Amino acid sequence: MYIVPEKEIAGLVTRAQSFDAVEKVFASMSARSAYNFPVIREAIGHEDALFGFKGGFDKTGMALGLKAGGYWPNNLEKNNLINHQSTIFLFDPDTGRVKAMVGGNLLTALRTAAASSVSIKHLAPKGAKVMGMIGAGHQATFQLRAALEQRNFEKVIGWNLHPEALSRLDEVAREFDLPFEAVELDQLGAEADVIITITSSFDPILMDAQVKGGTHIACMGTDTKGKQEVDAALVARATVFTDELAQSITIGECQHAIADDSLSQGDINEIGAVINGDHPGRTSDDEITLFDGTGVGLQDLAVALAVVDLAIEKGIAIEVDF
Amino acid sequence: MYIVPEKEIAGLVTRAQSFDAVEKVFASMSARSAYNFPVIREAIGHEDALFGFKGGFDKTGMALGLKAGGYWPNNLEKNNLINHQSTIFLFDPDTGRVKAMVGGNLLTALRTAAASSVSIKHLAPKGAKVMGMIGAGHQATFQLRAALEQRNFEKVIGWNLHPEALSRLDEVAREFDLPFEAVELDQLGAEADVIITITSSFDPILMDAQVKGGTHIACMGTDTKGKQEVDAALVARATVFTDELAQSITIGECQHAIADDSLSQGDINEIGAVINGDHPGRTSDDEITLFDGTGVGLQDLAVALAVVDLAIEKGIAIEVDF
Repeated sequence: MYIVPEKEIAGLVTRAQSFDAVEKVFASMSARSAYNFPVIREAIGHEDALFGFKGGFDKTGMALGLKAGGYWPNNLEKNNLINHQSTIFLFDPDTGRVKAMVGGNLLTALRTAAASSVSIKHLAPKGAKVMGMIGAGHQATFQLRAALEQRNFEKVIGWNLHPEALSRLDEVAREFDLPFEAVELDQLGAEADVIITITSSFDPILMDAQVKGGTHIACMGTDTKGKQEVDAALVARATVFTDELAQSITIGECQHAIADDSLSQGDINEIGAVINGDHPGRTSDDEITLFDGTGVGLQDLAVALAVVDLAIEKGIAIEVDF
Repeated sequence: MYIVPEKEIAGLVTRAQSFDAVEKVFASMSARSAYNFPVIREAIGHEDALFGFKGGFDKTGMALGLKAGGYWPNNLEKNNLINHQSTIFLFDPDTGRVKAMVGGNLLTALRTAAASSVSIKHLAPKGAKVMGMIGAGHQATFQLRAALEQRNFEKVIGWNLHPEALSRLDEVAREFDLPFEAVELDQLGAEADVIITITSSFDPILMDAQVKGGTHIACMGTDTKGKQEVDAALVARATVFTDELAQSITIGECQHAIADDSLSQGDINEIGAVINGDHPGRTSDDEITLFDGTGVGLQDLAVALAVVDLAIEKGIAIEVDF
C-alpha cells in the first residue's frame, strides 16, 4: 500500500486536477454509479472534539474508502496544529485490501473549492464579470482562486463580518491581476454575477431583496443543522442545485426553505445531472441559480485517488508492505 | 505514525494480551467511559462485497478510531486472499491526528475469541469440566483455545454440520492434552458445562430441551439480522449477558427472543457490569448463563492499541512521517 503524507500534497495536486476529479464524481453520483455511505459524526466528549467518517464508493472511478477525522478546537492553541484534522483511506474495490493513506487537510480545502468552481462552470452566466465573496477566512481564498478560473472576471468584491480579514481576498485578486473592493451586502448582491458564501454563520447574511439579476450563488459554508448563510426566500426564488439531496435538506443551505415549506425536495436538482446533460442548468440570463454545496466523502476519495496516482508517478509515494 | 502490517501480528500479540484488552474495554463500555459509534455496513454492488466501518472511543484506554473492511466472497478463489479483509486505524484522541494503522485480520479472530473467553471467566461454573463446541470452522479453533485457558477442563466435545471439520477441534484439544469426542447435539447439551456456538447458521441448532444443568453458553456466530444459533426459548430461560445491548437485540442472538416477546431489553445484562462488580453474574450452580457476543469496534481498537505498543517496544512498528 502507498502513503502520501500531508506535507507532499501541496506539491502534487493542481486545482485543475481537483476540479476534474470532483466534476467526474458528481457526474457518477447523479448517474447512480457512485454513492456516499451514511456519515458518522460524533462529539466524543474529549477536547470538545468532533470526530467521524465520510465514506463512499464510486464504481466508475473505482474509489472506495473514507475520510476520517474531525475538528479539535484546542489544537492550534495547545498543540500548534490546525484544528481540522483529516486523513483519507482508500481500499481496493476488487479485494477489500487497504490501498493508500493520504493526508486529508489540504485536499479537503481543494475539493471544497473545486465544488463551487464546478457549479460556476456549469451554472454561472457565461458573461459574468463581477465575483462576490461573503466570508474571508482561510477557506475563502481556496474558493476564490478556483472560482476565478471559470469566467473572465474583471473585479472581485467582498464582505466579511470582520472587514480586516478582507485583505486575504485582496491578495488573491492581485494574483489574478484583478481589482478588489470591500463592499456592503446591498452592493454585493446588486453587482456580483457570481457569489460564493463561505462562512460559519447561523443566521442568514445575504437577503433575498439584496440580489438583483441573473446571479449564480454557491453556498459552501452550511454543513450542519442550524447553520445558514442566505435568506430562505432567496433559496426558494432560485433554481436550486446540490451535490447530494439527502444532505442538502438536512444539513445544507436548503434545510431552512424546506422547513418553512417554500421549497420542496422535488425543486432541488443534482449538479451531476447538469454535468451529465440530464438537466439544462441555467436557462436564461436573469435566472438566479443556487448551488448548495454540502460536501461529500466521495469528493475526498476522488481527489485522493488522483493524488495517489500522481505520487506514484513522481516517486513520492511511500510504499509499505502491508 | 506507526504501521504494523498483518504479517507481524502473529508474532506480537498473545491470547492473554487480547483477553486483557477486551476485558478492560467491556468494563469501560459498561462504565460509560467508552462507546461504539453507529456501524456502517454497505453492500457496495461490486464483487458481492460487504464493506463498512466500526468505530468507537474509549476515554479510559484512550483508544479512538475504526476498523474498516469487510467481506469479499470471491477473494480466495480469484485472488488467493482471505475473504474477510480488515484494517484498524487509530487516532490520537488529543489531536485527531492519525496514530497507527494495524492489520486487522488476525486481530479480529483474537478479539472474537477473547470475548467468549471473558464471558467464560466471569460466568461459567467454577468447576466446569466439559467444553462443548458447536461449529468447527477456522474461527472455532481460536474460540476453543481461548476458552480452554479459563477452567480446568477435562474433555472437549463438539458438533458440526459437516463432521469432517471436527478434526480441527481435535487438534486444538490435543494442544491442551485433552481428549476430544464428536457428539450429537443431545449429548452436547446434556454434558457440556460450557458451550460456544460459532457458526453462520440462520436456524437454531441447539434447542432448549437439549440443555441440562448449569451451563454457560457463549453465542458468537450471530452478527446479522436473521442469523440464529440457539432456540429462542433457551435464550429466554437463561440469564442473558451481552457486549452491547443495541446490537444484541437487533443483530445478535437475542433478536429472536426479543421478537417473540419471550425476552425484554431489561432482561439483558452487560458483561461489563459483571467485570466491574455491578452485576453478580452467575448466582447458582444450576443457572444457565448465556453471553450474546455481537462484536464491537472497541474490541478491535483495544487489541490494536496493545499491538502498537508492543510493536514499538520490539522495534517492529514501521514509523512514517505523516
